[in-house]
Amino acid sequence: MQAKAVVLVSGGLDSATVLAMAKAEGLDCYALSFDYGQRHRAELDAAKKIAESLGAAAHRVISIDLRQFGGSALTDDSIAVPTSDAASFEEPDPAAAEIPITYVPARNTVFLSFALAWSELLQAQSIHIGVNSVDYSGYPDCRREFIDAYQNMANLATKTGVEGNALTIETPLIDLTKADIVSKGVSLGVDYGSTVSCYQADSSGRACGKCDSCHIRRCGFEAAGIADPTRYVA
Amino acid sequence: MQAKAVVLVSGGLDSATVLAMAKAEGLDCYALSFDYGQRHRAELDAAKKIAESLGAAAHRVISIDLRQFGGSALTDDSIAVPTSDAASFEEPDPAAAEIPITYVPARNTVFLSFALAWSELLQAQSIHIGVNSVDYSGYPDCRREFIDAYQNMANLATKTGVEGNALTIETPLIDLTKADIVSKGVSLGVDYGSTVSCYQADSSGRACGKCDSCHIRRCGFEAAGIADPTRYVA
Repeated sequence: MQAKAVVLVSGGLDSATVLAMAKAEGLDCYALSFDYGQRHRAELDAAKKIAESLGAAAHRVISIDLRQFGGSALTDDSIAVPTSDAASFEEPDPAAAEIPITYVPARNTVFLSFALAWSELLQAQSIHIGVNSVDYSGYPDCRREFIDAYQNMANLATKTGVEGNALTIETPLIDLTKADIVSKGVSLGVDYGSTVSCYQADSSGRACGKCDSCHIRRCGFEAAGIADPTRYVA
Repeated sequence: MQAKAVVLVSGGLDSATVLAMAKAEGLDCYALSFDYGQRHRAELDAAKKIAESLGAAAHRVISIDLRQFGGSALTDDSIAVPTSDAASFEEPDPAAAEIPITYVPARNTVFLSFALAWSELLQAQSIHIGVNSVDYSGYPDCRREFIDAYQNMANLATKTGVEGNALTIETPLIDLTKADIVSKGVSLGVDYGSTVSCYQADSSGRACGKCDSCHIRRCGFEAAGIADPTRYVA
Protein backbone atom coordinates (compact mmCIF):
# COMPACT_ATOMS: atom_id res chain seq x y z
CA MET A 1 0.00 0.00 0.00
CA GLN A 2 1.20 3.48 -0.88
CA ALA A 3 2.00 5.77 2.03
CA LYS A 4 -0.54 8.58 2.36
CA ALA A 5 0.34 12.25 2.48
CA VAL A 6 -1.75 15.37 3.09
CA VAL A 7 -0.55 18.17 0.81
CA LEU A 8 -1.55 21.81 1.37
CA VAL A 9 -2.50 23.15 -2.06
CA SER A 10 -3.29 26.87 -2.28
CA GLY A 11 -3.61 27.17 -6.04
CA GLY A 12 -0.25 28.92 -6.19
CA LEU A 13 3.06 28.00 -7.79
CA ASP A 14 4.84 26.70 -4.70
CA SER A 15 2.23 24.28 -3.45
CA ALA A 16 1.63 22.91 -6.97
CA THR A 17 5.33 22.06 -7.05
CA VAL A 18 5.10 20.41 -3.64
CA LEU A 19 2.21 18.24 -4.84
CA ALA A 20 4.13 17.22 -7.97
CA MET A 21 7.18 16.32 -5.85
CA ALA A 22 5.10 14.24 -3.44
CA LYS A 23 3.50 12.38 -6.35
CA ALA A 24 6.95 11.80 -7.87
CA GLU A 25 7.97 10.15 -4.58
CA GLY A 26 5.12 7.69 -5.07
CA LEU A 27 2.91 9.03 -2.28
CA ASP A 28 -0.87 8.78 -2.28
CA CYS A 29 -1.68 12.50 -2.04
CA TYR A 30 -4.68 14.13 -0.34
CA ALA A 31 -4.90 17.79 -1.34
CA LEU A 32 -6.22 20.31 1.18
CA SER A 33 -7.20 23.91 0.45
CA PHE A 34 -8.79 26.67 2.51
CA ASP A 35 -11.45 29.20 1.79
CA TYR A 36 -10.40 31.73 4.42
CA GLY A 37 -11.81 34.96 3.13
CA GLN A 38 -9.22 35.53 0.39
CA ARG A 39 -10.11 38.39 -1.88
CA HIS A 40 -10.68 36.15 -4.89
CA ARG A 41 -11.87 32.62 -5.56
CA ALA A 42 -9.59 32.11 -8.57
CA GLU A 43 -7.00 30.57 -6.25
CA LEU A 44 -9.44 27.89 -5.17
CA ASP A 45 -10.44 27.16 -8.75
CA ALA A 46 -6.74 26.80 -9.52
CA ALA A 47 -6.24 24.50 -6.54
CA LYS A 48 -9.01 22.21 -7.79
CA LYS A 49 -7.52 22.08 -11.28
CA ILE A 50 -4.04 21.38 -9.94
CA ALA A 51 -5.20 18.64 -7.57
CA GLU A 52 -6.97 16.92 -10.47
CA SER A 53 -4.23 17.33 -13.05
CA LEU A 54 -1.52 16.10 -10.70
CA GLY A 55 -3.55 13.07 -9.64
CA ALA A 56 -4.46 13.75 -6.00
CA ALA A 57 -6.57 10.96 -4.49
CA ALA A 58 -8.95 13.56 -3.04
CA HIS A 59 -9.27 17.32 -2.66
CA ARG A 60 -11.03 19.03 0.22
CA VAL A 61 -11.69 22.73 0.69
CA ILE A 62 -12.19 23.82 4.29
CA SER A 63 -14.07 27.04 4.94
CA ILE A 64 -12.71 29.09 7.80
CA ASP A 65 -13.27 32.72 8.51
CA LEU A 66 -10.15 34.55 9.62
CA ARG A 67 -11.94 37.79 8.64
CA GLN A 68 -13.76 37.56 11.95
CA PHE A 69 -10.48 38.55 13.54
CA GLY A 70 -9.46 41.15 10.90
CA GLY A 71 -5.92 42.49 10.80
CA SER A 72 -4.38 41.59 7.40
CA ALA A 73 -4.38 43.06 3.91
CA LEU A 74 -5.26 39.61 2.54
CA THR A 75 -8.46 39.31 4.53
CA ASP A 76 -9.36 42.88 5.50
CA ASP A 77 -10.74 45.06 2.71
CA SER A 78 -9.84 48.26 4.54
CA ILE A 79 -6.07 47.62 4.17
CA ALA A 80 -4.48 48.17 0.73
CA VAL A 81 -2.33 45.45 -0.86
CA PRO A 82 1.24 46.78 -1.22
CA THR A 83 2.84 46.76 -4.67
CA SER A 84 6.45 46.31 -5.78
CA ASP A 85 8.48 48.38 -8.17
CA ALA A 86 7.83 46.20 -11.22
CA ALA A 87 11.09 47.34 -12.84
CA SER A 88 13.17 45.64 -10.15
CA PHE A 89 13.91 41.96 -10.67
CA GLU A 90 15.92 41.34 -7.54
CA GLU A 91 14.45 38.85 -5.14
CA PRO A 92 13.65 40.31 -1.72
CA ASP A 93 16.14 39.58 1.04
CA PRO A 94 14.33 37.50 3.68
CA ALA A 95 16.80 38.42 6.42
CA ALA A 96 16.31 42.14 5.86
CA ALA A 97 12.55 42.03 5.42
CA GLU A 98 10.11 43.31 7.96
CA ILE A 99 6.95 41.35 8.61
CA PRO A 100 4.70 42.39 5.72
CA ILE A 101 1.17 43.69 6.01
CA THR A 102 -0.01 40.69 3.97
CA TYR A 103 0.77 38.52 6.99
CA VAL A 104 -2.33 36.61 8.13
CA PRO A 105 -2.16 35.89 11.86
CA ALA A 106 -1.26 32.30 12.65
CA ARG A 107 -2.29 31.23 9.16
CA ASN A 108 0.06 28.29 8.72
CA THR A 109 -0.65 27.17 12.29
CA VAL A 110 -4.36 27.09 11.50
CA PHE A 111 -3.86 25.37 8.13
CA LEU A 112 -1.49 22.75 9.53
CA SER A 113 -3.96 22.00 12.32
CA PHE A 114 -6.65 21.02 9.83
CA ALA A 115 -4.07 19.02 7.89
CA LEU A 116 -3.21 17.27 11.14
CA ALA A 117 -6.87 16.37 11.78
CA TRP A 118 -7.20 14.92 8.29
CA SER A 119 -3.89 13.11 8.39
CA GLU A 120 -4.85 11.42 11.62
CA LEU A 121 -8.07 10.11 10.11
CA LEU A 122 -6.32 9.03 6.91
CA GLN A 123 -3.41 7.58 8.88
CA ALA A 124 -1.19 9.66 6.64
CA GLN A 125 2.52 9.65 7.44
CA SER A 126 3.34 13.16 6.34
CA ILE A 127 2.00 16.66 5.75
CA HIS A 128 3.60 18.61 2.89
CA ILE A 129 3.67 22.41 2.87
CA GLY A 130 5.30 24.78 0.42
CA VAL A 131 7.00 27.23 2.75
CA ASN A 132 10.32 28.60 1.46
CA SER A 133 12.91 31.23 2.13
CA VAL A 134 11.54 33.64 -0.48
CA ASP A 135 7.94 33.43 0.65
CA TYR A 136 9.24 33.79 4.16
CA SER A 137 10.39 37.41 3.81
CA GLY A 138 9.36 38.10 7.35
CA TYR A 139 6.62 35.52 7.91
CA PRO A 140 7.45 33.83 11.22
CA ASP A 141 5.48 30.71 10.37
CA CYS A 142 7.53 29.91 7.26
CA ARG A 143 10.77 29.22 9.11
CA ARG A 144 12.31 25.82 9.77
CA GLU A 145 12.31 26.28 13.55
CA PHE A 146 8.57 26.85 13.45
CA ILE A 147 8.03 23.73 11.33
CA ASP A 148 10.20 21.63 13.68
CA ALA A 149 8.25 22.87 16.70
CA TYR A 150 4.98 22.17 14.91
CA GLN A 151 6.04 18.61 14.09
CA ASN A 152 7.03 18.00 17.71
CA MET A 153 3.68 19.33 18.95
CA ALA A 154 1.74 17.35 16.33
CA ASN A 155 3.22 14.07 17.50
CA LEU A 156 2.02 14.81 21.05
CA ALA A 157 -1.43 15.94 19.90
CA THR A 158 -2.84 12.88 18.25
CA LYS A 159 -3.79 9.31 18.88
CA THR A 160 -1.58 8.31 15.95
CA GLY A 161 1.40 10.19 17.37
CA VAL A 162 0.84 8.82 20.87
CA GLU A 163 0.70 5.30 19.46
CA GLY A 164 4.17 5.82 18.05
CA ASN A 165 3.39 6.41 14.38
CA ALA A 166 5.35 9.58 13.90
CA LEU A 167 4.09 12.16 11.46
CA THR A 168 6.54 14.36 9.60
CA ILE A 169 5.98 17.87 8.28
CA GLU A 170 7.72 17.99 4.90
CA THR A 171 8.93 21.31 3.50
CA PRO A 172 10.70 20.37 0.26
CA LEU A 173 10.96 23.99 -0.91
CA ILE A 174 12.28 25.53 2.26
CA ASP A 175 15.83 26.10 0.99
CA LEU A 176 15.03 26.60 -2.69
CA THR A 177 14.96 29.86 -4.58
CA LYS A 178 11.93 30.63 -6.71
CA ALA A 179 14.02 29.80 -9.78
CA ASP A 180 14.90 26.37 -8.32
CA ILE A 181 11.23 25.74 -7.58
CA VAL A 182 10.14 26.66 -11.09
CA SER A 183 12.82 24.48 -12.67
CA LYS A 184 11.88 21.56 -10.45
CA GLY A 185 8.18 21.90 -11.27
CA VAL A 186 8.73 22.21 -15.00
CA SER A 187 10.84 19.03 -14.92
CA LEU A 188 7.90 17.29 -13.22
CA GLY A 189 5.38 18.58 -15.75
CA VAL A 190 3.59 21.17 -13.60
CA ASP A 191 1.41 23.48 -15.69
CA TYR A 192 2.19 26.78 -13.99
CA GLY A 193 -0.20 28.55 -16.34
CA SER A 194 -3.04 27.17 -14.20
CA THR A 195 -1.56 28.36 -10.92
CA VAL A 196 -2.45 31.70 -9.36
CA SER A 197 0.03 33.53 -7.11
CA CYS A 198 -1.30 37.08 -7.39
CA TYR A 199 -2.70 38.68 -4.23
CA GLN A 200 -5.42 40.37 -6.28
CA ALA A 201 -6.07 38.15 -9.30
CA ASP A 202 -9.28 38.77 -11.20
CA SER A 203 -12.16 36.30 -11.18
CA SER A 204 -10.69 34.32 -14.09
CA GLY A 205 -7.32 34.04 -12.33
CA ARG A 206 -5.44 36.68 -14.31
CA ALA A 207 -2.61 38.28 -12.31
CA CYS A 208 -2.18 42.02 -11.63
CA GLY A 209 1.55 41.88 -12.35
CA LYS A 210 2.17 44.51 -9.69
CA CYS A 211 1.87 43.01 -6.21
CA ASP A 212 4.78 41.51 -4.27
CA SER A 213 3.65 38.00 -5.06
CA CYS A 214 3.53 38.67 -8.84
CA HIS A 215 6.93 40.29 -8.60
CA ILE A 216 8.57 37.37 -6.80
CA ARG A 217 6.99 34.91 -9.22
CA ARG A 218 8.11 36.77 -12.33
CA CYS A 219 11.66 36.99 -10.96
CA GLY A 220 11.62 33.21 -10.53
CA PHE A 221 10.82 32.50 -14.16
CA GLU A 222 13.37 35.12 -15.26
CA ALA A 223 16.12 33.62 -13.12
CA ALA A 224 15.28 30.08 -14.24
CA GLY A 225 15.37 31.13 -17.87
CA ILE A 226 11.88 29.77 -18.42
CA ALA A 227 9.13 31.65 -20.27
CA ASP A 228 6.60 33.02 -17.79
CA PRO A 229 3.25 31.28 -18.49
CA THR A 230 1.35 33.59 -16.12
CA ARG A 231 -1.82 35.14 -17.51
CA TYR A 232 -1.68 38.86 -16.72
CA VAL A 233 -4.58 41.32 -16.77
CA ALA A 234 -3.00 43.90 -19.09
CA MET B 1 -4.08 48.67 31.18
CA GLN B 2 -5.37 45.21 32.00
CA ALA B 3 -3.55 42.32 30.39
CA LYS B 4 -5.66 40.61 27.73
CA ALA B 5 -6.43 36.90 27.66
CA VAL B 6 -8.19 34.69 25.14
CA VAL B 7 -10.31 32.10 26.96
CA LEU B 8 -11.72 29.05 25.20
CA VAL B 9 -15.33 28.76 26.36
CA SER B 10 -17.26 25.69 25.22
CA GLY B 11 -20.41 26.19 27.24
CA GLY B 12 -19.38 23.41 29.59
CA LEU B 13 -18.50 23.34 33.27
CA ASP B 14 -14.72 23.36 32.96
CA SER B 15 -14.28 26.28 30.62
CA ALA B 16 -16.81 28.38 32.59
CA THR B 17 -14.58 27.83 35.62
CA VAL B 18 -11.50 28.83 33.64
CA LEU B 19 -13.17 32.06 32.56
CA ALA B 20 -14.18 32.86 36.15
CA MET B 21 -10.60 32.20 37.32
CA ALA B 22 -9.11 34.44 34.63
CA LYS B 23 -11.52 37.24 35.53
CA ALA B 24 -10.64 36.80 39.21
CA GLU B 25 -6.98 37.34 38.26
CA GLY B 26 -7.98 40.73 36.83
CA LEU B 27 -7.53 39.77 33.16
CA ASP B 28 -9.45 41.37 30.31
CA CYS B 29 -11.05 38.22 28.88
CA TYR B 30 -11.93 37.50 25.25
CA ALA B 31 -14.13 34.41 25.04
CA LEU B 32 -13.83 32.13 22.02
CA SER B 33 -16.21 29.32 21.08
CA PHE B 34 -16.47 26.99 18.10
CA ASP B 35 -19.36 25.78 16.06
CA TYR B 36 -17.71 22.62 14.78
CA GLY B 37 -20.63 20.38 13.95
CA GLN B 38 -21.53 19.42 17.50
CA ARG B 39 -24.79 17.55 17.71
CA HIS B 40 -26.58 20.35 19.53
CA ARG B 41 -26.47 24.12 19.67
CA ALA B 42 -27.34 24.30 23.37
CA GLU B 43 -23.62 24.35 24.19
CA LEU B 44 -23.14 27.50 22.13
CA ASP B 45 -26.16 29.17 23.72
CA ALA B 46 -24.64 28.30 27.09
CA ALA B 47 -21.25 29.70 26.03
CA LYS B 48 -22.86 33.01 25.12
CA LYS B 49 -24.69 33.21 28.44
CA ILE B 50 -21.54 32.35 30.40
CA ALA B 51 -19.37 34.86 28.52
CA GLU B 52 -21.91 37.59 29.29
CA SER B 53 -22.58 36.68 32.90
CA LEU B 54 -18.87 36.42 33.72
CA GLY B 55 -18.07 39.74 32.06
CA ALA B 56 -16.02 38.79 28.98
CA ALA B 57 -14.98 41.84 26.95
CA ALA B 58 -16.07 40.05 23.76
CA HIS B 59 -17.32 36.66 22.60
CA ARG B 60 -16.68 35.22 19.16
CA VAL B 61 -18.00 31.99 17.70
CA ILE B 62 -15.89 30.52 14.91
CA SER B 63 -17.57 28.13 12.49
CA ILE B 64 -15.40 25.25 11.41
CA ASP B 65 -16.46 22.01 9.89
CA LEU B 66 -14.62 19.01 11.26
CA ARG B 67 -17.49 16.87 9.92
CA GLN B 68 -15.86 17.13 6.53
CA PHE B 69 -13.25 14.75 7.88
CA GLY B 70 -15.65 12.50 9.85
CA GLY B 71 -14.32 9.97 12.35
CA SER B 72 -15.78 10.86 15.77
CA ALA B 73 -18.98 10.15 17.67
CA LEU B 74 -19.27 13.87 18.44
CA THR B 75 -19.36 14.94 14.82
CA ASP B 76 -20.38 11.83 12.91
CA ASP B 77 -24.04 10.83 13.17
CA SER B 78 -23.29 7.25 12.14
CA ILE B 79 -21.32 6.56 15.34
CA ALA B 80 -23.32 6.08 18.56
CA VAL B 81 -22.40 8.06 21.69
CA PRO B 82 -21.23 5.61 24.39
CA THR B 83 -23.03 5.67 27.74
CA SER B 84 -21.79 4.94 31.25
CA ASP B 85 -23.32 2.73 33.87
CA ALA B 86 -25.27 5.47 35.63
CA ALA B 87 -25.19 3.56 38.93
CA SER B 88 -21.42 3.89 39.19
CA PHE B 89 -20.03 7.09 40.67
CA GLU B 90 -16.36 6.31 40.41
CA GLU B 91 -14.38 8.68 38.27
CA PRO B 92 -12.72 7.05 35.26
CA ASP B 93 -9.03 6.30 35.61
CA PRO B 94 -7.19 8.39 33.00
CA ALA B 95 -4.14 6.13 33.04
CA ALA B 96 -6.19 3.05 32.28
CA ALA B 97 -8.47 4.63 29.73
CA GLU B 98 -8.27 3.94 26.06
CA ILE B 99 -8.70 6.79 23.66
CA PRO B 100 -12.49 7.18 23.55
CA ILE B 101 -14.64 7.21 20.45
CA THR B 102 -15.75 10.74 21.37
CA TYR B 103 -12.23 11.92 20.49
CA VAL B 104 -12.31 14.58 17.77
CA PRO B 105 -9.11 14.49 15.71
CA ALA B 106 -6.73 17.31 16.55
CA ARG B 107 -9.56 19.30 18.12
CA ASN B 108 -7.57 21.22 20.71
CA THR B 109 -4.83 21.85 18.16
CA VAL B 110 -7.38 23.41 15.83
CA PHE B 111 -9.08 25.40 18.60
CA LEU B 112 -5.80 26.71 20.02
CA SER B 113 -4.73 27.78 16.54
CA PHE B 114 -7.70 30.10 16.20
CA ALA B 115 -7.08 31.34 19.74
CA LEU B 116 -3.51 32.05 18.69
CA ALA B 117 -4.64 34.08 15.68
CA TRP B 118 -6.96 36.17 17.83
CA SER B 119 -4.46 36.60 20.65
CA GLU B 120 -1.89 37.91 18.20
CA LEU B 121 -4.30 40.54 16.91
CA LEU B 122 -5.42 41.48 20.43
CA GLN B 123 -1.85 41.39 21.69
CA ALA B 124 -3.10 39.09 24.40
CA GLN B 125 -0.53 37.62 26.73
CA SER B 126 -2.20 34.30 27.42
CA ILE B 127 -4.62 31.69 26.13
CA HIS B 128 -6.66 29.84 28.77
CA ILE B 129 -8.00 26.36 28.15
CA GLY B 130 -9.85 24.03 30.49
CA VAL B 131 -8.04 20.75 29.89
CA ASN B 132 -7.74 18.54 32.95
CA SER B 133 -6.76 15.08 34.05
CA VAL B 134 -10.36 13.82 34.24
CA ASP B 135 -11.36 15.08 30.83
CA TYR B 136 -8.13 13.64 29.58
CA SER B 137 -9.13 10.00 30.02
CA GLY B 138 -7.19 9.14 26.90
CA TYR B 139 -7.29 12.39 24.93
CA PRO B 140 -3.70 13.06 23.83
CA ASP B 141 -4.29 16.78 23.40
CA CYS B 142 -5.29 17.33 27.03
CA ARG B 143 -1.88 16.44 28.50
CA ARG B 144 0.67 18.87 29.88
CA GLU B 145 3.38 17.78 27.46
CA PHE B 146 1.11 18.62 24.54
CA ILE B 147 0.32 22.05 26.01
CA ASP B 148 4.03 22.76 26.58
CA ALA B 149 4.85 21.80 23.00
CA TYR B 150 2.00 23.94 21.74
CA GLN B 151 3.22 26.96 23.68
CA ASN B 152 6.73 26.51 22.32
CA MET B 153 5.41 26.27 18.75
CA ALA B 154 3.08 29.27 19.24
CA ASN B 155 5.95 31.52 20.22
CA LEU B 156 7.76 30.64 16.99
CA ALA B 157 4.63 31.06 14.87
CA THR B 158 3.71 34.67 15.36
CA LYS B 159 4.97 38.17 14.88
CA THR B 160 4.27 38.81 18.57
CA GLY B 161 6.29 35.76 19.63
CA VAL B 162 9.15 36.60 17.27
CA GLU B 163 9.26 40.12 18.66
CA GLY B 164 9.86 38.64 22.11
CA ASN B 165 6.43 39.04 23.70
CA ALA B 166 5.96 35.51 24.91
CA LEU B 167 2.50 34.03 24.99
CA THR B 168 1.58 31.47 27.62
CA ILE B 169 -0.99 28.70 27.38
CA GLU B 170 -2.69 28.56 30.78
CA THR B 171 -4.30 25.34 31.97
CA PRO B 172 -5.50 26.14 35.51
CA LEU B 173 -7.56 22.95 35.77
CA ILE B 174 -4.97 20.48 34.54
CA ASP B 175 -4.24 18.91 37.93
CA LEU B 176 -7.66 19.40 39.52
CA THR B 177 -10.33 16.76 40.05
CA LYS B 178 -13.85 17.54 38.90
CA ALA B 179 -14.77 18.09 42.57
CA ASP B 180 -11.95 20.65 42.96
CA ILE B 181 -13.13 22.43 39.82
CA VAL B 182 -16.74 22.59 40.97
CA SER B 183 -15.72 23.90 44.40
CA LYS B 184 -13.48 26.52 42.84
CA GLY B 185 -16.20 27.70 40.46
CA VAL B 186 -18.87 27.87 43.13
CA SER B 187 -16.55 30.00 45.27
CA LEU B 188 -16.20 32.36 42.28
CA GLY B 189 -19.94 32.54 41.70
CA VAL B 190 -20.18 30.44 38.53
CA ASP B 191 -23.78 29.48 37.75
CA TYR B 192 -23.25 25.87 36.69
CA GLY B 193 -26.98 25.55 35.98
CA SER B 194 -26.34 27.45 32.73
CA THR B 195 -23.47 25.24 31.63
CA VAL B 196 -23.95 22.22 29.37
CA SER B 197 -21.58 19.27 29.54
CA CYS B 198 -23.77 16.54 28.06
CA TYR B 199 -22.68 15.03 24.73
CA GLN B 200 -26.32 14.83 23.64
CA ALA B 201 -28.17 17.63 25.43
CA ASP B 202 -31.59 18.55 24.03
CA SER B 203 -32.22 21.85 22.29
CA SER B 204 -32.94 23.65 25.56
CA GLY B 205 -29.69 22.38 27.07
CA ARG B 206 -31.13 19.62 29.26
CA ALA B 207 -28.67 16.79 29.88
CA CYS B 208 -29.25 13.10 29.12
CA GLY B 209 -27.76 12.01 32.43
CA LYS B 210 -26.34 8.89 30.75
CA CYS B 211 -23.30 9.78 28.67
CA ASP B 212 -19.72 9.74 29.96
CA SER B 213 -19.67 13.51 30.23
CA CYS B 214 -22.85 13.61 32.35
CA HIS B 215 -21.44 10.84 34.50
CA ILE B 216 -18.14 12.61 35.18
CA ARG B 217 -19.94 15.86 35.91
CA ARG B 218 -22.40 14.30 38.36
CA CYS B 219 -19.53 12.57 40.17
CA GLY B 220 -17.85 15.97 40.55
CA PHE B 221 -20.81 17.53 42.36
CA GLU B 222 -21.22 14.41 44.50
CA ALA B 223 -17.58 14.41 45.55
CA ALA B 224 -17.61 18.16 46.24
CA GLY B 225 -20.73 17.80 48.40
CA ILE B 226 -22.52 20.39 46.29
CA ALA B 227 -26.08 19.99 45.00
CA ASP B 228 -26.03 19.21 41.27
CA PRO B 229 -27.74 22.14 39.48
CA THR B 230 -27.76 20.31 36.13
CA ARG B 231 -31.09 20.28 34.29
CA TYR B 232 -31.75 16.69 33.23
CA VAL B 233 -34.21 15.49 30.59
CA ALA B 234 -36.08 13.00 32.77
